[in-house]
Amino acid sequence: MTRSRLCRTFQTAPAAVPRDDGAKYLRSGLAAEGWQAPDWLVPDLEDGTAPDRKDEALDNVRDLLPEYAPEFAGEIWPRVEWDYGDGATSERGRGQIAELVESVGEHLDGVVVPKVGRLADVEDAEAAVEAAARETGRDVDLAVIVETARARSDLREIAQFGADSRLAALVFGPVDYAAELGGRDVGGSPEWPGLYEALSNEASANDLLAIGGPFDRLFRERAGVTFYNGDAYAEYVEREARVGLDGSWSLHPNQTEQANRIHLPSEAELREAVRKIEGFVEAKAEGTGAVSIDGQMVDEATFKNFENTVETVRAVHEARESQTREYYDADLLDRALAAG
Amino acid sequence: MTRSRLCRTFQTAPAAVPRDDGAKYLRSGLAAEGWQAPDWLVPDLEDGTAPDRKDEALDNVRDLLPEYAPEFAGEIWPRVEWDYGDGATSERGRGQIAELVESVGEHLDGVVVPKVGRLADVEDAEAAVEAAARETGRDVDLAVIVETARARSDLREIAQFGADSRLAALVFGPVDYAAELGGRDVGGSPEWPGLYEALSNEASANDLLAIGGPFDRLFRERAGVTFYNGDAYAEYVEREARVGLDGSWSLHPNQTEQANRIHLPSEAELREAVRKIEGFVEAKAEGTGAVSIDGQMVDEATFKNFENTVETVRAVHEARESQTREYYDADLLDRALAAG
Amino acid sequence: MTRSRLCRTFQTAPAAVPRDDGAKYLRSGLAAEGWQAPDWLVPDLEDGTAPDRKDEALDNVRDLLPEYAPEFAGEIWPRVEWDYGDGATSERGRGQIAELVESVGEHLDGVVVPKVGRLADVEDAEAAVEAAARETGRDVDLAVIVETARARSDLREIAQFGADSRLAALVFGPVDYAAELGGRDVGGSPEWPGLYEALSNEASANDLLAIGGPFDRLFRERAGVTFYNGDAYAEYVEREARVGLDGSWSLHPNQTEQANRIHLPSEAELREAVRKIEGFVEAKAEGTGAVSIDGQMVDEATFKNFENTVETVRAVHEARESQTREYYDADLLDRALAAG
Repeated sequence: MTRSRLCRTFQTAPAAVPRDDGAKYLRSGLAAEGWQAPDWLVPDLEDGTAPDRKDEALDNVRDLLPEYAPEFAGEIWPRVEWDYGDGATSERGRGQIAELVESVGEHLDGVVVPKVGRLADVEDAEAAVEAAARETGRDVDLAVIVETARARSDLREIAQFGADSRLAALVFGPVDYAAELGGRDVGGSPEWPGLYEALSNEASANDLLAIGGPFDRLFRERAGVTFYNGDAYAEYVEREARVGLDGSWSLHPNQTEQANRIHLPSEAELREAVRKIEGFVEAKAEGTGAVSIDGQMVDEATFKNFENTVETVRAVHEARESQTREYYDADLLDRALAAG
Repeated sequence: MTRSRLCRTFQTAPAAVPRDDGAKYLRSGLAAEGWQAPDWLVPDLEDGTAPDRKDEALDNVRDLLPEYAPEFAGEIWPRVEWDYGDGATSERGRGQIAELVESVGEHLDGVVVPKVGRLADVEDAEAAVEAAARETGRDVDLAVIVETARARSDLREIAQFGADSRLAALVFGPVDYAAELGGRDVGGSPEWPGLYEALSNEASANDLLAIGGPFDRLFRERAGVTFYNGDAYAEYVEREARVGLDGSWSLHPNQTEQANRIHLPSEAELREAVRKIEGFVEAKAEGTGAVSIDGQMVDEATFKNFENTVETVRAVHEARESQTREYYDADLLDRALAAG
Repeated sequence: MTRSRLCRTFQTAPAAVPRDDGAKYLRSGLAAEGWQAPDWLVPDLEDGTAPDRKDEALDNVRDLLPEYAPEFAGEIWPRVEWDYGDGATSERGRGQIAELVESVGEHLDGVVVPKVGRLADVEDAEAAVEAAARETGRDVDLAVIVETARARSDLREIAQFGADSRLAALVFGPVDYAAELGGRDVGGSPEWPGLYEALSNEASANDLLAIGGPFDRLFRERAGVTFYNGDAYAEYVEREARVGLDGSWSLHPNQTEQANRIHLPSEAELREAVRKIEGFVEAKAEGTGAVSIDGQMVDEATFKNFENTVETVRAVHEARESQTREYYDADLLDRALAAG
């Protein structure tokens, strides 16, 4: 868990598509409102954009940000090309970083670099961001996508590097990762619980954000009707929240809407947290270090978990007051803002 | 698995509570008998004791140990204050270690230090124990609670440090750990299977004890009646036994009673082990390296697992003969003591 | 995942048993045909062979390989004795490696070394293989069995050593591993999901093969009848395939037959892969980087997974064309061989 930055939702939008309006998805991401507005919008120059549209994609980002970014409530982090195993691709990524920061750096919060390899490759990516930032005087950070066996192998060292560099977030990329390891969808897909734990732990040990991977089964079909796969995505996001990831990847406004809510404590969670904080504070005033509340032993350690819940609500309240006002009972929200 | 020390149960007892007898829980822990007597009693000066009762807690430990410790069958390991992120707290812990070893060191087997950070912080804690031991000539060891992202990140190095120092046990602290990572109870609590595996592995690689974390849902309510949550705790302890933890944390005499039993092989497990050891020894005498017994291929590797079962029974038999006599059929116990 | 070598099945055969024909199992392994022929046959001089038959076992391997190996379609990798904790055993293993490579090196692809400890011990094992290879001019590789807490602790470094040495494969040994950690079969057996993930990841990061551990519950009994435990083994192998292990351990021709099939993509998997590859290639030609096919967002990363499926089929087709011809519909196989 990190408290320095809010990223419940990391929504990628292909920056150029073969439509009349090639910037259609980028535009709709930047213009999204309410629960459908992601905390981070990620204009995608990498896999979401076809090889022969990379220049168009870069142009679209440069054209649209000056118009839309000032009104966009969240952060903007374009994903560039990169590949630890292919120098030419990473070289193109270096060029994209330089051009983006040079042209629209004032609208960017960071750059997302995919397919990094071992620590040295992450250091190369960070050097590219650092050079662009230094040259332009812009404050631009780095997020890397952990989706290769090498990056997973060096995860601890990569995260420690993040403690003293522009690296601010670790994002999981399950599709490339499964391809690297040769994971197969046989009797269920691979779930990588060890990787999820490590991602959450190493991010927390170095105050980085940890963000989950995309869920690509957007729709499913039953008895001839195709519909949005909302239960499966909600469970996927809950699993990420359970191990302490700060946010989830979204490929669609519906996913953004769900993940924005799931990464807020539920009303029941907040109510329990507030009640136990209030009970524990009272018990401490009477001189006890641990107290049983509703069958649970509550002490300083337990207390911290309930404080986390309340702090998350406060952070979102500060950034998106309309969401907390709509989501919680007014009395409960007041108690939460006052608790502790 | 380690065979050098017995700790099926690690029971914490707050050392000062706001009652007429402020040492009530400490006293009852030290006076527990039969299955309710923990292998390790942990007088708690940390989270179980309120901030303004720390001195009283230290006094209680110093007062009660001379009276109770000589009759107490298990080991005594007080938990002191410590916090990798707060020097003042760790400084108080250093003082508590020095005072405890100085005043009642002859009754102590070790000291438990919580909230350690990276390896360097564990080395600091060990230096405090080593200094107190050297000064007094007492043989006092160290257990650390792994409950921060930094300690989990450095777990391999911390455990290796244990191979050549006073560090003798690694204990899991899930509540603080969940707070550090931001884990949430949403559609179930986080279970940290990767951490459990790593704790068991690194302890085994360096001959340290590995001990599970507290289960704080002591009671539950159904249809208006509140009762001891015995099934949930038993399953929690079974899961810890399955991955090879040596013992489990207890917050209550009932938990101690259950964990003392679950960390003994069941009668069925012992019966299978004895039968397969006997069968394999016979087969080897006839010149085979692997033999099928009851549908299972048994070889030297399988054999070692059955030997583990029997050795655990022997170790408990040596320390608590009344428990093994009560728990097992007399013939089976005799065969187990003779097998191999 | 590694593509440099095919090992769907790693079948051990005790090299000397107390029968009229002491080489019975070795002979039947070498003579196996069709789906029952393993990709790797592992003549076992270690746990499968009784202590007083080790010399006979070595003789059997030397006698049978010249006769059977030329007709055997797979690779031959004898398992020798070794123990990180017992120098005399490892010394015997060194002797066995030297004698095997000297006498029948032209029929060997590698040597399997069990019970390795930390990195230094693996380096010792590799030095023994390297010396034998250099002396004889034979090209013989090394596979190690990861089955000790120390090897698991050093897994990352061991695998990196494999990138520049004769170490070519990492095999899991769950039975010895459970014994080292003290894992117990209580409410289910330990499953080590973290270890499986790490094995797959570190092997992939260094282009080594990753192979699962033996499943020893070969038979089960129900209502008085004992039968082959085919469902349980199939699920065991599926779980290994899911996380990207390249192959599974077999103790029996039935297991070999099942694992050879399960480590081939099913007809449904291949059909989906071919359809999505064809659909994505078409979509790219029209200028899109990501396209929704049957409700799934397919991009370059997803595409790689489908390519893996097709490449596995091609690799098996090249080595065992009779299997792919029998397994897949002829049209589908043709499309798979042409796809991409």
